Amino acid sequence: MAAPITAPTRPGPTLAPSVSDLVTRHRDSTASLVDTAEEVMERIDRRGDDGTWITVADPSDVLARARALMREPDPGRLPLYGVPFGVKDSIDVAGYPTTLACPDYGYPATATAPAVQRLLDAGAVFVGKTNLDQFATGLNGTRTPGVIPRSVYGGELISGGSSSGSALAVALGEVPFAVATDTAGSGRVPPALNGIMGFKPSRGLIPTVGLVPACRSLDCLSLIAGRVTDLATVFDVVAGRDDRDPYARDRRRDATPAAALRIGLPATGDLEFFGDTAMRDAHLAARNRVERDFPRVVTAPLGPFTAAGELLYSGPWVAERLAEFGGFLDSHPESVLPVIRAILESGRGYSAVDVFRAEHRLFALRTEVARLFERMDVLVLPTLGTTFTVDEVLADPIATNTVLGHYTHFGNLLDLCAVAVPAGHTADGRPAGLMILGPALADDRVLAVAAALAAEPPPPAASPGPADADPVVLVVVGHHLSGQPRSVDLVNRGAVLQEQTTTAAAYRLLRTGGDTPGVPVLVADPAGVAIAVETWTVPAAALPAVLAGSAPDVALGRVQLADGRVEIGFVADPSASAGPVPPEDISAHGGWRAYLAQR
Amino acid sequence: MAAPITAPTRPGPTLAPSVSDLVTRHRDSTASLVDTAEEVMERIDRRGDDGTWITVADPSDVLARARALMREPDPGRLPLYGVPFGVKDSIDVAGYPTTLACPDYGYPATATAPAVQRLLDAGAVFVGKTNLDQFATGLNGTRTPGVIPRSVYGGELISGGSSSGSALAVALGEVPFAVATDTAGSGRVPPALNGIMGFKPSRGLIPTVGLVPACRSLDCLSLIAGRVTDLATVFDVVAGRDDRDPYARDRRRDATPAAALRIGLPATGDLEFFGDTAMRDAHLAARNRVERDFPRVVTAPLGPFTAAGELLYSGPWVAERLAEFGGFLDSHPESVLPVIRAILESGRGYSAVDVFRAEHRLFALRTEVARLFERMDVLVLPTLGTTFTVDEVLADPIATNTVLGHYTHFGNLLDLCAVAVPAGHTADGRPAGLMILGPALADDRVLAVAAALAAEPPPPAASPGPADADPVVLVVVGHHLSGQPRSVDLVNRGAVLQEQTTTAAAYRLLRTGGDTPGVPVLVADPAGVAIAVETWTVPAAALPAVLAGSAPDVALGRVQLADGRVEIGFVADPSASAGPVPPEDISAHGGWRAYLAQR
Repeated sequence: MAAPITAPTRPGPTLAPSVSDLVTRHRDSTASLVDTAEEVMERIDRRGDDGTWITVADPSDVLARARALMREPDPGRLPLYGVPFGVKDSIDVAGYPTTLACPDYGYPATATAPAVQRLLDAGAVFVGKTNLDQFATGLNGTRTPGVIPRSVYGGELISGGSSSGSALAVALGEVPFAVATDTAGSGRVPPALNGIMGFKPSRGLIPTVGLVPACRSLDCLSLIAGRVTDLATVFDVVAGRDDRDPYARDRRRDATPAAALRIGLPATGDLEFFGDTAMRDAHLAARNRVERDFPRVVTAPLGPFTAAGELLYSGPWVAERLAEFGGFLDSHPESVLPVIRAILESGRGYSAVDVFRAEHRLFALRTEVARLFERMDVLVLPTLGTTFTVDEVLADPIATNTVLGHYTHFGNLLDLCAVAVPAGHTADGRPAGLMILGPALADDRVLAVAAALAAEPPPPAASPGPADADPVVLVVVGHHLSGQPRSVDLVNRGAVLQEQTTTAAAYRLLRTGGDTPGVPVLVADPAGVAIAVETWTVPAAALPAVLAGSAPDVALGRVQLADGRVEIGFVADPSASAGPVPPEDISAHGGWRAYLAQR
Repeated sequence: MAAPITAPTRPGPTLAPSVSDLVTRHRDSTASLVDTAEEVMERIDRRGDDGTWITVADPSDVLARARALMREPDPGRLPLYGVPFGVKDSIDVAGYPTTLACPDYGYPATATAPAVQRLLDAGAVFVGKTNLDQFATGLNGTRTPGVIPRSVYGGELISGGSSSGSALAVALGEVPFAVATDTAGSGRVPPALNGIMGFKPSRGLIPTVGLVPACRSLDCLSLIAGRVTDLATVFDVVAGRDDRDPYARDRRRDATPAAALRIGLPATGDLEFFGDTAMRDAHLAARNRVERDFPRVVTAPLGPFTAAGELLYSGPWVAERLAEFGGFLDSHPESVLPVIRAILESGRGYSAVDVFRAEHRLFALRTEVARLFERMDVLVLPTLGTTFTVDEVLADPIATNTVLGHYTHFGNLLDLCAVAVPAGHTADGRPAGLMILGPALADDRVLAVAAALAAEPPPPAASPGPADADPVVLVVVGHHLSGQPRSVDLVNRGAVLQEQTTTAAAYRLLRTGGDTPGVPVLVADPAGVAIAVETWTVPAAALPAVLAGSAPDVALGRVQLADGRVEIGFVADPSASAGPVPPEDISAHGGWRAYLAQR
C-alpha cells in the first residue's frame, strides 16, 4: 500500500473550554450552565448532520437539565458541574435509542449505563449519542449507514473509528469530553486522526454494564478529551468497581512522577510506517523529545506486541462478535452493512480448537510482555503508522483497517492500558501522535507520562521515593541479621539479603534488656562510629508485618550507610531507653554479631 | 446413581519415612542412601505389576545415583538428600519414555522437565514413571491399557485418576512423595481415594515445561505425599518461575497462621454426596472438628464453584485436549482407548463461538468467586462426594467420572489452589477427605490450614501481625493528619481516614524546628498525656513510600491508642532531638492541630 499523501485542508481541532475552566466558571457564576448548554446545542445544530451524532438530545431537555443543576445548593460537591458530554451509541442512556449505527438493531434504552450515571451524578450534562463504525467493528469511521464523518483536518482524511463521533464531538469543540469504547483501538485511533487524546484504561476499571459488547473479553469503556487533565478528572469520576462487570477490578493508585518512570522505546527499525516517510519523520521528531526529556529511557522489543496484534486480526476473536450479533445477523442479514456482514460471517469458520490454540499462543505472548514490563514502566509508540482518506478506505476496507490497528490491536489482548496523545504534525499537516502503553493497572502511570509529554518539558525529577509495588531496601542491625532468630521473618516474607556493610560513622549501638541478650538498637550520633549492618531487599508490602514482628524497642526510620545512601532501617524506638534497666552502649564492639561472640 | 457400599478389605495407606526423617538419617549416616534406594526398588519389585508404575528405573541406575550422592561433600545443601520419588508418565525425564499410558504415543524424552530437574538438583532419587488415565483424561484410574490399579483400601475401590500411580506409589509406602498433575482434579482425587495428601498449587508456580499438556490453559503440576510437611518441603524445591511456562508467575510468601484465617464452609444443604450417607456422615464429623477448632468460620455459597465445574464437563474445554492430541487421534485412532477416543472426539462438535460464550460465563463466575474470597481466606469442602469400585466405573465411565469431579472440576477454571487431606473414614472403612481451596497465590495459606487439620487441634492462635496484602492501621499525629500538608501522600497511596482519637495517656508530643512550624514527634512516656491522633488504613505496600516522604525526624514504631490497641504509628526518630535547637514539649496542647491553632 503506497503512502497516502493528501494534504489536510484545515488546521485541526478546536477545543471547548476545559472541564476545570467550565466547572470553575459555573461555580463562581462567571458563566451560566444554561448559557454553556445553549452554546453546545447551537454549535451542534450549526454543523448540521456531519456524521458526528446519531441522536442529539432535545435542546429543551438539555436546558432543563442545566437549569435544574443551577438549583444545586452545593456545586462544590459536583466535579463535573455543568460540563456537557456525549456518549458513544453502543452504550445505554435511558430514554434514548441505542443503535450501534444499525437502525434495525436499535432499541430504546430503559436504564443508563452506570459509568454514564456516575457522570450525571457528578453534574455533567448529556447532549447526545455519537456515531460509530457499525457494531463497533472497525477503526476507520466509514462503516456507518448515515453520513460518513471526516477528520477535523479536512482533506477527506477519515475520522477514524469505531468511536468516530465521540472524537469529533471533542475535536470540533462541541464538548470537552466524550465517552467512547476501545476493543482493538476504537478509543485511540479516532483521537489520533483528530489531534486530540484518547485514554483506554485497564479493562474492568470503568464498568461495561450497559454497553452492547463487541468482543466481550476485550471491550472497555474509554474516554476522549482535548487535555490530559480532563481525562484524569473524568476518569476519577467514572472509575470504580461494579461487580456486575465480570472483568471488574480495583484501580491501583500510583503517584510516581513521570520522570521516575522507565520509558520503553522500540528500536526505530522495528517501527512500521507503511511507506509514509512524512509520518515517520514526524514520529522520530516526537521520539527525540521523549529521549531528551525523560531521564530513564530503555529499548524494548516490539515483536511480542505486534505478534499479539496479528493474532487478533488473523485469528478467531472475530467469532466472539458472533456471540453477540450472530442471532441478529441470521434474522436480519440485509440490515447489516456488507463489509460488517462479511467480517462477522468470517467468524463462523473457526472451531473451538482454533480458539484454544490462539489462546495458548496469546498466553505465551502475555508472559513475554509481562517480563518486558519488569524492565520498563511504560512503552511509547506511534498511535498510527499512516493515515487514509475516505476513498482509500472504501476502496480496500479490510487492508486499510488492519494498517490502522498496527499499534493498537494488541492493547486489550495483552491486558494493557494506554493513552494516545497528539505529538506534532507531518510536514504535510497531518496529525502525528504518541501512544503510552502500560501493563494492567498502570493507568496512573500512563496518564502521568501523557501529562508530561503534553506539558513539555516534563516536570523536574523529584525524589520519587519507592513505588508501592517495588521492593525496598531495609537496613538491619540485630536479630534480623542473617542467621539471627528474626531473619526467618524476612526470608518467609520474600526478603533477600543484599550485602553486609556498615552504617556511616555516625551511630551508636545500644543494647536493652539487662542480663538477657537483649535487643540492639541503633541511635544516630554525629560523634558515633560505623556499625555493622546488613541490607536486605524486602517486598514493600511486607514491611508492616516485619515491624509488627520485631521488638517494641525498635522502629523503622532512616539509616545512612557507609557509602552515603540513606535507606529505611531499624532504629531505636524513642521508648527504648524507658525500660527498668538503662541501655548499655555496645558501640565499641562495632556490631551485634561481634558483641554476641564475646558475650 | 445408588450409593456404592463396598466395604474396603485393607486398612489403607502405609507411609514411607518422611522426607525430613530420610534426609536427617542420610546426613548423619544413621541410614545409607544406598540402603534406602535398595529398599524402595525391592518394595516395588515385590508388588509386581500392580498398575502403579509404567516404567520402573533400572535398579542399578538408582543405586549408582545413590552412591554418587553419598560422595556429596556437603549434604547440608541438599534438602532432598537421598529421597526417592516417582514422576507421572506425562512429564519428561531424560532417558525414559514418556507414554501418557498410550504406548503408541510414547516417545523417548531427551530432556528432563525443569521441575523434576530441581528435585534431582536437591538430591532426590528418581525411581520411575507412574501410571495415569490415558492422556491424563479421567479421574478414576481405570483408563489404562495395562493393569488397572486399585486403591490401597482394597475392596475393588478404584485408585482414582488421572494421577493413579503417583498416589499409589506414596500410599503403598514406596516413596515419600511423587510428582503428579492436576487439570480437573487429577492430583486430588487419587490421594483422597488412598488416604493421603495431594497439593495442587496455583497454576504457574511449578513450571509445566516438559509436561505433555492435557488442557494447556488449566494444567498444573502437583505433588502427592503422606504428610503436609513433606508437601511443603518439596514445594519449596520445585516452585519457581520459569519463563518458558506461559502461565508462570511468582509465588507469594505468607506466614499468616491458620488460626488467623477465615475458613469458609458451605451450608451443609449445598453439599452433594450422591446418596452416600456414610460419606456424608464422615464429612460432617470432619467438618464439626473444623468448626470447633478454627476461631474464624464463615458460611460460603457453593453455587458459583459448582457452576464453573459444570462448565468444564458440559462445555467446550474438551476441545482444548484436541489441540494437543487431535493429530495423533486422526492418525492412530486404534491406539487410543475407546472411552478416551469418544471423549476427545466430542471436542470436535464445539465452535469458536461456543468457546467465547463459555468463557464469558466463566469470567462472570470468576468475578463472583473473587468477591467471595474477599470475605473468606480459604474454602473447605469434601474432596469426594462418594466412591466407586472398578466395575462401577467400567459400567458407566462418563457419569461416574463426573461425580468424582464434583468438588474438583472447578479448581483450575477458577484459578484456585487446593490441598486434599485425609479426614477420617466412613463407617464402612472408606477414606473421607477434606479439600482446602484458596484463591490464586494463597498456596501458603491452604498449606497452613492443611497442616492445622492434620495436626489437630490447630496450633493456638498467635498474634499474627498484618498479612502482607492487607491494609494496615497507621497512627498519624502531625503533618499527615487530614487537611495537613502530607495527608495527600496518604490519599494518593490509597489510604483512608478511619477515626480521630487519642493515644493512651502515656505520650509526650515534642516539636522540632525552632521558629518554623516544625515537625511534631511522639515519644512514649509513662508519665505523659493522651495526644490527639488519627488512624488511617494504608495499603501495606505503601508504607515504605509514606515513610520515605516524611520528615527525617520521624520513624514508624508502635503507638498505643486510648482503647488499648497498639498500632503502627509515627514516633520520633531517636535522632529527632539531635538538631541544633532542642525540641519543644507541646504536650500541653493535646495535639498538633491545637498547637497550630494557637500559634
